[in-house]
Amino acid sequence: MRSSETTIDTGNYALVIHGGAGTILKERMTSKKEAAYKAALTQALQAGYDILKKGGNSLDAVEAAVIVMEDSPLFNAGKGSVFTNEGKNEMDAAIMDGKSLMAGSVASVTTIKNPIIAAKTVMLKSPHVMMIGAGAEKFAKEQGLNIVDPSYFYTKERWEQLQNAKEKDKIQLDHTDSIKSHSFLKQPENHDYKYGTVGACALDIHGNLAAATSTGGMTNKRFGRVGDAPIIGAGTYANNNSCAVSCTGWGEFFIRNVVAHDVAALVEYKGLNLKDAAEEVVMKKVPALGGDGGLIAIDRKGNIAMPFNTAGMYRGYVKKDGQIVVEIYK
Amino acid sequence: MRSSETTIDTGNYALVIHGGAGTILKERMTSKKEAAYKAALTQALQAGYDILKKGGNSLDAVEAAVIVMEDSPLFNAGKGSVFTNEGKNEMDAAIMDGKSLMAGSVASVTTIKNPIIAAKTVMLKSPHVMMIGAGAEKFAKEQGLNIVDPSYFYTKERWEQLQNAKEKDKIQLDHTDSIKSHSFLKQPENHDYKYGTVGACALDIHGNLAAATSTGGMTNKRFGRVGDAPIIGAGTYANNNSCAVSCTGWGEFFIRNVVAHDVAALVEYKGLNLKDAAEEVVMKKVPALGGDGGLIAIDRKGNIAMPFNTAGMYRGYVKKDGQIVVEIYK
Repeated sequence: MRSSETTIDTGNYALVIHGGAGTILKERMTSKKEAAYKAALTQALQAGYDILKKGGNSLDAVEAAVIVMEDSPLFNAGKGSVFTNEGKNEMDAAIMDGKSLMAGSVASVTTIKNPIIAAKTVMLKSPHVMMIGAGAEKFAKEQGLNIVDPSYFYTKERWEQLQNAKEKDKIQLDHTDSIKSHSFLKQPENHDYKYGTVGACALDIHGNLAAATSTGGMTNKRFGRVGDAPIIGAGTYANNNSCAVSCTGWGEFFIRNVVAHDVAALVEYKGLNLKDAAEEVVMKKVPALGGDGGLIAIDRKGNIAMPFNTAGMYRGYVKKDGQIVVEIYK
Repeated sequence: MRSSETTIDTGNYALVIHGGAGTILKERMTSKKEAAYKAALTQALQAGYDILKKGGNSLDAVEAAVIVMEDSPLFNAGKGSVFTNEGKNEMDAAIMDGKSLMAGSVASVTTIKNPIIAAKTVMLKSPHVMMIGAGAEKFAKEQGLNIVDPSYFYTKERWEQLQNAKEKDKIQLDHTDSIKSHSFLKQPENHDYKYGTVGACALDIHGNLAAATSTGGMTNKRFGRVGDAPIIGAGTYANNNSCAVSCTGWGEFFIRNVVAHDVAALVEYKGLNLKDAAEEVVMKKVPALGGDGGLIAIDRKGNIAMPFNTAGMYRGYVKKDGQIVVEIYK
């Protein structure tokens, strides 16, 4: 028998999730709100764990965990998604199977109750990987997915965030004519406009990895902007040869750094361990370009990494023993 | 002075382009058509070379080369793009600067004469990396880009390809109810429906790399399908630490393999030379999943790779000496 360092323990399983990184400060949090986030994260972990414990696969586990967070109004995904400049909720999601390298993603969908189910359906029931907009919605409807009126995604808090963002943009734009200086991209106090993606990564009892990410995008976004979440390799990636990764943060910098695949490549090609690879990208490469955010990752030994360079990141994990750990701040 | 093996020769420059991979067989080609393709490839190389020779940057050179191919009806990009199932031309493009790691991309645009200029404008004039659909078009219009009526992209040959594809799909669908068996994805004789992307990669006199890709997508595509071309890391990637890459092929497999970034990671992290890295991905990893296609790549020494696993790939390169080489078949 070989040591556990070199053998894949196919009896092992674990799940790690995030509910978004950003300027999440304890002094701005009420104990009631904190408890609500912890309860939602716990529920998401439990949903995925129940599947893994029964010998279910990692793909179903990450989907189940993400569905709980999409259905919660607390996170910027599904119900509770942020509003675009036009007052719409445009959502993106992606999922990837580390065994087959099959993947599915949707972007800019507005009527699909659970975008992560749409991403999984694209992966399993179509020859494509990525579908966007009305085409993706047509496919989801044909496949019998739950289609809702766009008003389902409305939450009062997100609507007010949009009004705030627009007001701040207006003030900012009075002093400049450059689109680059939109306040939501410049002013640190508005950093949270960009964040709040949810995601999950899992190892199942069969030794297979999977990753899933879902987001409502960026408050006040314009021009059909797409972030990293639905981009395979940027916000979402899974490969049994290395690890599964789901990101949250300033999407543009995660795309430019091809973050999820870069973590996997550092593990597979450079021989870094999961923690070092994840930190190399999140704590060095992303900030070097001026971006911020975090990620979660898991490898085939069940090692977990959850680095972030923001004030906080909603996150948690559960291993084989069933003990759920959730954290918010640094 | 160090050897040329370890020193970047900032006096060197080169450009490599592709006009799509696919079932391009000499026996199906007329000498007139072959001459037309060679002339267009030569013109594209000359346009980029003229910029590089004057000390211009690689970003402008790849854009110039791609514009020539977008404006030519011979290639599946810009004028000459294939038709979707709904009889529309939906185009994607991406560009990336290897020095700054800045990138821009557009997907599913229907009215922008040169999608590669839109991608570059997203990169340079917006805080975003990726814009899609009507939002991207609105941005392009605001930025003063050349907007045309969708009928500009019509070519008789592509329209007939769509009618053929629909007829074959119809026959195929008479025998099945599964979307997976759409003939354009199953039947080798229809392989060309997927191909025809154009792209360019360049090294400039300043030692900087850049990559650009533009495509009309897949004949008869449905559901807002997006391929690898506009996905940074999949179809397009450039990094001065490794290489610049532009892909052409069955997009879904290039996304799942994060092909462009994978080539770069094999160079940077595993120490493979450009040729070995490019061949590892195109000749082994993509076919292992059932996909096919090709890519072009260039590194900071001016090494060029142009592997493909299809019958042919329109391709060519020019180095400092100005001698233009164009090839079509194996």
